[in-house]
Amino acid sequence: MNIEMIRAAQKRLEGHARCTPLLSAPCLDEIAGRRLFLKAENLQHTGSFKFRGGWSAVSALDEAQRKAGVIAFSSGNHAQGVALAAREHGVTAVIVMPSDAPNTKIDATRALGAEVVLYDRATEDRKAIGRTLADARGLTMIEPFDNAQVIAGQGTTGLEIADQARDAGVTSGEVLVCCGGGGFTSGIALALEAEAPEMRVRPVEPEGFDDVARSLVSGQREINATMSGSICDAIISPQPGEITFPILHRLCGPGIIVTDAECLHAMAYAFAHLKLVLEPGGASALAGALFYGDEIEGDAVICTASGGNVDAPMFQRALNEYGDKV
Amino acid sequence: MNIEMIRAAQKRLEGHARCTPLLSAPCLDEIAGRRLFLKAENLQHTGSFKFRGGWSAVSALDEAQRKAGVIAFSSGNHAQGVALAAREHGVTAVIVMPSDAPNTKIDATRALGAEVVLYDRATEDRKAIGRTLADARGLTMIEPFDNAQVIAGQGTTGLEIADQARDAGVTSGEVLVCCGGGGFTSGIALALEAEAPEMRVRPVEPEGFDDVARSLVSGQREINATMSGSICDAIISPQPGEITFPILHRLCGPGIIVTDAECLHAMAYAFAHLKLVLEPGGASALAGALFYGDEIEGDAVICTASGGNVDAPMFQRALNEYGDKV
Repeated sequence: MNIEMIRAAQKRLEGHARCTPLLSAPCLDEIAGRRLFLKAENLQHTGSFKFRGGWSAVSALDEAQRKAGVIAFSSGNHAQGVALAAREHGVTAVIVMPSDAPNTKIDATRALGAEVVLYDRATEDRKAIGRTLADARGLTMIEPFDNAQVIAGQGTTGLEIADQARDAGVTSGEVLVCCGGGGFTSGIALALEAEAPEMRVRPVEPEGFDDVARSLVSGQREINATMSGSICDAIISPQPGEITFPILHRLCGPGIIVTDAECLHAMAYAFAHLKLVLEPGGASALAGALFYGDEIEGDAVICTASGGNVDAPMFQRALNEYGDKV
Repeated sequence: MNIEMIRAAQKRLEGHARCTPLLSAPCLDEIAGRRLFLKAENLQHTGSFKFRGGWSAVSALDEAQRKAGVIAFSSGNHAQGVALAAREHGVTAVIVMPSDAPNTKIDATRALGAEVVLYDRATEDRKAIGRTLADARGLTMIEPFDNAQVIAGQGTTGLEIADQARDAGVTSGEVLVCCGGGGFTSGIALALEAEAPEMRVRPVEPEGFDDVARSLVSGQREINATMSGSICDAIISPQPGEITFPILHRLCGPGIIVTDAECLHAMAYAFAHLKLVLEPGGASALAGALFYGDEIEGDAVICTASGGNVDAPMFQRALNEYGDKV
């Protein structure tokens, strides 16, 4: 896993993934106490950065493997990313999804032509289900984060951040990344190590699901006590990946922990001042920048907005609770 | 008023206005029955295209005029555009706003450092109020649409549309523009006449406030019967402008009329499939493309999203009524 793989993925993604904008608003600078930028990956195809990794992985397969089809397990964003990448390559995608994923994500995955297999997040092992199906049908597994080509695809976001921040006069500061298994975080960290070495990547996780933050402290891959109970479904995973953790450990941290309530509040800020729809997990980095300024160093902070795939009722909850506090 | 003024404005705006993305989603193509693109000017500074015209006009003043300050009347988006442009030039802005404008717009204008003067939209003449203040304090009036440098600034959107559509393989088709007094519409039409002559601009207006559509039919500047009663506050104006109408008449039409309900429905579509926050008037062009496909010609339609400055309660209304119909 290295920067050359990310650069190669960027070439494969050209003309397929969007270069998403790096946005800002004076009011958010004031609250954050420094210049604040948001990398709007909610505007990526399928509504999250996951399309980058999906396209990178599918496009990296050899012809025969790709034709046989792919399989993925995902709470929804990786599902859609892989489904669209597979459809645009003209190949089959089977997606294993938790039955409690937002309807918007399950429906969108089916609408992209994928075959969806549901499982119970609390009692079943998604990896085992995925592997059984893959073996039986000759499908190639596209892991959500512990896959070098997926990490390479997510890392292309970091190449764009380096370019866009430079254009805005920013070459140092902290980059807050919404963090699940660490594919997005480690990919961005590798890209910035090469292209913007004075930037430091900080993983942001929801309270109670801070496996990466704890792992960075202990130096080993810690496991979350539970896999359900947060509204930040997109960034909940059992533990840091085998491939991602050494990268996270070498380049990132310390972790920042935000509450579900702070993510909802950040969604309301993004609604009011950036005109963007973020999902709770996708607003976690913005929440970190707005509410944990004292844990951050430097004159500029760049937040990734990892996704915007949120059901209307959850978005309304954010506006009900925080629409008049922004 | 000509294309060279738009090109000159583009140079003055460089590094100040955003080049906003041209977005799409497979699901919206299906509903529209053709390729659909959305020019996301809700992501422009101050949440609408009006910053372009404000910056263009303020930057075009001579030094002495600019230092004396500017004044504008506006339902809110032009207000914010002029206020930010003035602040970034270090000069005073006085903004005359209707007292029933959304709070988010009044608050945002004040937050940008402008002095806000409120008036009653039903009983008072905003132009007269503005001129009295301008004369008394030596301020330069920046008209919301009937001002050549404002039109030149709005027209830079058209230059970007031509470039971005070409990159997406589109050189012909219809361009639906959310239309009030016609500054945005006429500026885009002039830009496309030069840069994408096979595109046709179609003004989109709310039912009951279709002065431009009727004027295009009659050949003279028709007047709306009333100035209040639509949720599309951003695109309500009494009649087409003296400068804008001849351009509209030469290059644009026929007009498309949408209902308030269709604008709310389009807001829900933009929420679900583009992850964007649009205001009702800013969603009117998208409503035209989604619900009036039989009035449109060609394989591709480009909609402008003119703004996203909407209060939380109005956005929640859109999600309550249409969140499950997208």
